[in-house]
Amino acid sequence: MLYWLIQSLEGFDFPGRHLMDYITFRSGMSFALAMLIALVFGRSVIARLQRMQVGEVVRNLGLEGQMQKKGTPTMGGIIIIMSILVPCLLFGNLSNIYMILMLVATVWMGCIGFLDDYRKLKYHNKDGLKGKYKITGQVGLGLLVGITMWLSPEIVMSEPKEAAVADGPAKIEVVESAPMVKSPQTTIPFVKNNNFNYDWLTGWVKDQHAAETLGWIVFVVVVIFVVTAVSNGANLTDGLDGLCAGTSAIIGLALAIMAYLGGNLIYSGYLNIMYIPSSGEMVVYAGAFIGALVGFLWYNAFPAQVFMGDTGSLTLGGILAVFAILIRKELLIPLLCLIFFIEDLSVILQVAYFKATKKKYGEGRRIFKMTPLHHHFQREGDGLTGVLFNYPRHAIPESKIVVRFWIVGILLAAITFVTLKIR
Amino acid sequence: MLYWLIQSLEGFDFPGRHLMDYITFRSGMSFALAMLIALVFGRSVIARLQRMQVGEVVRNLGLEGQMQKKGTPTMGGIIIIMSILVPCLLFGNLSNIYMILMLVATVWMGCIGFLDDYRKLKYHNKDGLKGKYKITGQVGLGLLVGITMWLSPEIVMSEPKEAAVADGPAKIEVVESAPMVKSPQTTIPFVKNNNFNYDWLTGWVKDQHAAETLGWIVFVVVVIFVVTAVSNGANLTDGLDGLCAGTSAIIGLALAIMAYLGGNLIYSGYLNIMYIPSSGEMVVYAGAFIGALVGFLWYNAFPAQVFMGDTGSLTLGGILAVFAILIRKELLIPLLCLIFFIEDLSVILQVAYFKATKKKYGEGRRIFKMTPLHHHFQREGDGLTGVLFNYPRHAIPESKIVVRFWIVGILLAAITFVTLKIR
Repeated sequence: MLYWLIQSLEGFDFPGRHLMDYITFRSGMSFALAMLIALVFGRSVIARLQRMQVGEVVRNLGLEGQMQKKGTPTMGGIIIIMSILVPCLLFGNLSNIYMILMLVATVWMGCIGFLDDYRKLKYHNKDGLKGKYKITGQVGLGLLVGITMWLSPEIVMSEPKEAAVADGPAKIEVVESAPMVKSPQTTIPFVKNNNFNYDWLTGWVKDQHAAETLGWIVFVVVVIFVVTAVSNGANLTDGLDGLCAGTSAIIGLALAIMAYLGGNLIYSGYLNIMYIPSSGEMVVYAGAFIGALVGFLWYNAFPAQVFMGDTGSLTLGGILAVFAILIRKELLIPLLCLIFFIEDLSVILQVAYFKATKKKYGEGRRIFKMTPLHHHFQREGDGLTGVLFNYPRHAIPESKIVVRFWIVGILLAAITFVTLKIR
Repeated sequence: MLYWLIQSLEGFDFPGRHLMDYITFRSGMSFALAMLIALVFGRSVIARLQRMQVGEVVRNLGLEGQMQKKGTPTMGGIIIIMSILVPCLLFGNLSNIYMILMLVATVWMGCIGFLDDYRKLKYHNKDGLKGKYKITGQVGLGLLVGITMWLSPEIVMSEPKEAAVADGPAKIEVVESAPMVKSPQTTIPFVKNNNFNYDWLTGWVKDQHAAETLGWIVFVVVVIFVVTAVSNGANLTDGLDGLCAGTSAIIGLALAIMAYLGGNLIYSGYLNIMYIPSSGEMVVYAGAFIGALVGFLWYNAFPAQVFMGDTGSLTLGGILAVFAILIRKELLIPLLCLIFFIEDLSVILQVAYFKATKKKYGEGRRIFKMTPLHHHFQREGDGLTGVLFNYPRHAIPESKIVVRFWIVGILLAAITFVTLKIR
């Protein structure tokens, strides 16, 4: 709203007025403000949650230090959501379709997560919202985002087109953007221009119009799948102090860089990547997102003084998914968010293997000592893992597992960028 | 050398050959390789250090968990240095003056740090190299770098010049760079173009040639001061598990972004910042630097399996200082590396106050419970700190202090970028 206010003062000129024109400045400010809100208001939110006895219901899994977590307040996701919304409302361009969609996604997933936490606390059990309601919410968000991208006339893009860059240190480039098109195109690694159009999957349909429509439908289905998978993945990843917040911040930073480059005609022309007009505004959102998470980590880092709860983790996953989709990077998600998927997968594999062996041998067997995967490393005496991770004869301490997951997250982000260069 | 090899195969064309032309690709690869080296070889280096009984001499300061650190091998800085050098030698352009200076700085400071650690181990005390030798080494590096920048014909820059950017989404910019000059100019926040020339300080000298020479001399003195201060600051900061490595990685990332933008004519023209030809190569170095640190954190994060020792910390500080100086960002260092300076300052203040009060009252008093500052937060029952940091009645756990220092580092980096926009 500050953005609007200053934009509306067109006639007046005062020092600093032009600053609001810069996406970099607004992103920096929204980052700093988000962090400040998380730091300053985080304390009072934590104190209030503690008074209201909003404590996590801890199942005794026999893990070291685990029962000390009893009494730590949960629902800290409220801090994150608040710290994202306020800076965006102030520094964001609220008529920008991308900003609107991000804010909708934040509030939407925040509500689902809150309901989930609330039910857990009310009925004092770990079940919370029934799985089908959660998934309905995620699918609903996917539908909303997918269909908006399909129908909104504001959401267009131009295909990658190389800029004409004159060599030598003296004078340089003339770029001309390709025409804007409305098209379900996305980014994939390893191919020329890194460009992929969902239309291509439906090329066998003779009627061109029908093929296009079908292409968009495929796109919407992919969107729904991505939102659901990432949101649940983040939810499962939230099991150790600082794990989900840190990992999400790293993914958010990688996506922010992509959004900045792809939303700027000059950079995208120079780098020969897809240009998406107006999508640069998402960097302002990303600034708030990263700032909120880093600020939240102040209290959430090991040993945590607050947990984010499903209010936090479901929302973070939903936000990252929608963000990636809007900047047409959803097919990079399996690599960039590999940690989420591996956590997802570890649970699925464990359950499937247990059921299969139970049927076969009458007694269920396990692949991992415990799932989601991060708990596996907390169990003592695991031979192979101990050797691989240089922790023979010991369980790996929680703080160390978390930092190592962060490190893997950073490596994945770097690899994602490198794959985009190899074509 | 891989870079040279592939560049020399000019006649042949094979897939992926052109990749080496991209600084982004080479930086990504050097990041990934540095991390891999630290992860894979880190283990065997740690095992070897342990066998050689290269353990840290731990002074009993009465801090929680402190004596558990006994027996943890030190000199892990060797892992960092190795992980920086190998990727740079492979992917770097070894005829680039900036790359050469960075490699020299790395080896130079590495040797001083190693001597320091070696003497500590040999004589089993905490004193190590005498202060004057350490400072001689740092001043020597500062002199070398400052004078090379003064005399080398390859080190030039062009003043910030705005690019002509045509508005609208369709077609865009033509940039022409300002002429290259040999000049002791640097970047400062809050002023137009963010430009400052050390010449301006010596403008009162009438003879223009003498004034210029004097400007360069001022520059060299600044360089010496920055190298010494940052190197010692990093050295003092290295007192908690992961503290120095994480903080340095964050500063390194901020500097890498600045180097990337300032070393590219198109970006620097668009952003209206100083352009330094050939300095983009430093991003390749920065990639290795950040990768090495992140990989090192795998073992160094709380609870640490290895310490970096002075081999690490003196080197990290020296590298960051020289890096900032080469991309003409040394005046941003007091803000960007504020953590190092506050650690420096806490020790200086503590000692001065203690001496002054001892003289006055016959009994020395202290400002902090303990210095360097990070130890202050580890002492129990400090009223104000406890309240400020939401840890009433408790010492703040080590892992939490470290993450909070990282968070402050991230905030400082963000503020540094924001100040550059405000002009």
